[in-house]
Amino acid sequence: MDRNFFEKTLERWEELAIRGLRTGEKAECDAPDVLERIIVAGMGGSGIVGDFLSDLANHYSWPFEVLSLKEDRIPFRPREGDLIFVVSYSGNTLETLSVFNQSCSASRCIIVTSGGELLFRSIASGKCSLRLSEGLLPRLDLPEILYSILSFLTSNYKIPNIKAESLDDSIVIFKEDLKHQVNELAKRFLISPPILIVSRPYFSVAIRLKNDLAENSKLYSSIEFLPEAAHNVVEALPYIGDPNRIFIVTGKYSWGNIYIEAFSKALNGKTGYIELKGDSLLQELIYGYRLSAYISLELSSLRGFNPCTTENIDKYKEELGRVLSH
Amino acid sequence: MDRNFFEKTLERWEELAIRGLRTGEKAECDAPDVLERIIVAGMGGSGIVGDFLSDLANHYSWPFEVLSLKEDRIPFRPREGDLIFVVSYSGNTLETLSVFNQSCSASRCIIVTSGGELLFRSIASGKCSLRLSEGLLPRLDLPEILYSILSFLTSNYKIPNIKAESLDDSIVIFKEDLKHQVNELAKRFLISPPILIVSRPYFSVAIRLKNDLAENSKLYSSIEFLPEAAHNVVEALPYIGDPNRIFIVTGKYSWGNIYIEAFSKALNGKTGYIELKGDSLLQELIYGYRLSAYISLELSSLRGFNPCTTENIDKYKEELGRVLSH
Repeated sequence: MDRNFFEKTLERWEELAIRGLRTGEKAECDAPDVLERIIVAGMGGSGIVGDFLSDLANHYSWPFEVLSLKEDRIPFRPREGDLIFVVSYSGNTLETLSVFNQSCSASRCIIVTSGGELLFRSIASGKCSLRLSEGLLPRLDLPEILYSILSFLTSNYKIPNIKAESLDDSIVIFKEDLKHQVNELAKRFLISPPILIVSRPYFSVAIRLKNDLAENSKLYSSIEFLPEAAHNVVEALPYIGDPNRIFIVTGKYSWGNIYIEAFSKALNGKTGYIELKGDSLLQELIYGYRLSAYISLELSSLRGFNPCTTENIDKYKEELGRVLSH
Repeated sequence: MDRNFFEKTLERWEELAIRGLRTGEKAECDAPDVLERIIVAGMGGSGIVGDFLSDLANHYSWPFEVLSLKEDRIPFRPREGDLIFVVSYSGNTLETLSVFNQSCSASRCIIVTSGGELLFRSIASGKCSLRLSEGLLPRLDLPEILYSILSFLTSNYKIPNIKAESLDDSIVIFKEDLKHQVNELAKRFLISPPILIVSRPYFSVAIRLKNDLAENSKLYSSIEFLPEAAHNVVEALPYIGDPNRIFIVTGKYSWGNIYIEAFSKALNGKTGYIELKGDSLLQELIYGYRLSAYISLELSSLRGFNPCTTENIDKYKEELGRVLSH
């Protein structure tokens, strides 16, 4: 697997989104009548869907809460109105299997996976699953993961501002040409690894970008969330030496965001911008994930890395498996 | 206000903790009979208490959830079993006042403040408050904020492993001598701004350290949370150029933490450590906050900054106030 495989899969993102849409629509899984909370458990590429749903829920004031969980257990006892999505593309993520074991006997869980141990256990215990396409890199099956869960939710619940038809409509964003923005940002990040400043409803885009830069380009970046960042790190940012590192993630819902504006003024406007495009928040978020993938792909070439291999993550997983098998 | 004022207040931390203890014990505030969730809303120095309670709740499997909220609104409708602590030392934090206005008419709220607009509004609306000492920097009244809330909770609820007497006992940690560790870490951070790696139950210490370094030393650092960090940034860390930047925050509950061990092995053990001391998790956390304060104080001198002034945060607050008053 190399840049070519990566690029080819990116070209399949629209198709993967449509597959996800159909999977979620058709799934007949047990879910609470009155949904009070969604808990999404998943690590890395499989975990980003929790942040994605959280951005949507927050922005559209969904009638249920969304909790994105990137740990090996749910730190409290789930309740009657909770629905847990246990997401692991490979089905072999040890932290996520641990959540499954600890939470899915007593609670309503839906498994999202392409196979592996998680699928095996979910079948053995009679749990419902949303099956993903096999043979991809976990982080590259993102559209299928996002759309399968989102379409399951819209098919089973009335969700303000996200109707089934608007899901179908959102697919056009996969055709948007990003080349110019990708080239410009990749060149800037090559010189100055970014400090990403982000405010709701775009948290998930910054998280995905940071992760893509790490996994695909082997580039370390960091994120600061507004408004909290304006109460601490804003004090240190003028002294980082390279002011070109600061980028604010913005979209059409950032206009008139008083926290971004006050933060930017406190830094005398010395900030770059990463602009998301699209007709709806859903489109802007997908645009952001695509932008992240392409920027990190471009940067992997500029820095001379294979975007598909992740030696250190593999080493971690191997070591964790070794310890747990004893 | 200068280093001298800062240092003098740090010497008062034990006294402030005891004041907090007494305030929390005596307070007669309306709270749910069956507490299902605590939501702590606060920014910067006033917000760290949410992370502190979250570390404790998670580690000791408290029978209620803890949510640390550093935003201008609660992103869902609070329920019957929720208790909201609205914390602003000054009482004039605009984001926190916004949470108060949006959430405290229909929900159970306890105000934690030294005065300002928040105290005024809480009195006007008949809300209960835990009053803090006046005339300090918000981030320097930390022990009073933590202990007042914690002692309110232990006085009103049965909380596993945190009994009232163990709160009193924990106070000895304020006498621990930190000088050697402070000097060593301050010198290392001066050369290499740290990337802090942290796992539960020490999240709040890393967050506090990052914030103290920014506010007091004007030094930008970043945090990575385990196990999630092992699924993305571990891939980029070997390429940051300066391997001396990586520090793992550990304490006695880190022994045998398989996620830390596998992460460290994936990096071939090339990591520094920040070791917390104490007889209990509570003591270790307090130790960590004291360590953060002293390291950032020492670094402020080494870097030639006044630890008390925060020009850019002040500019942000002024700008935000200006926009909101229009």
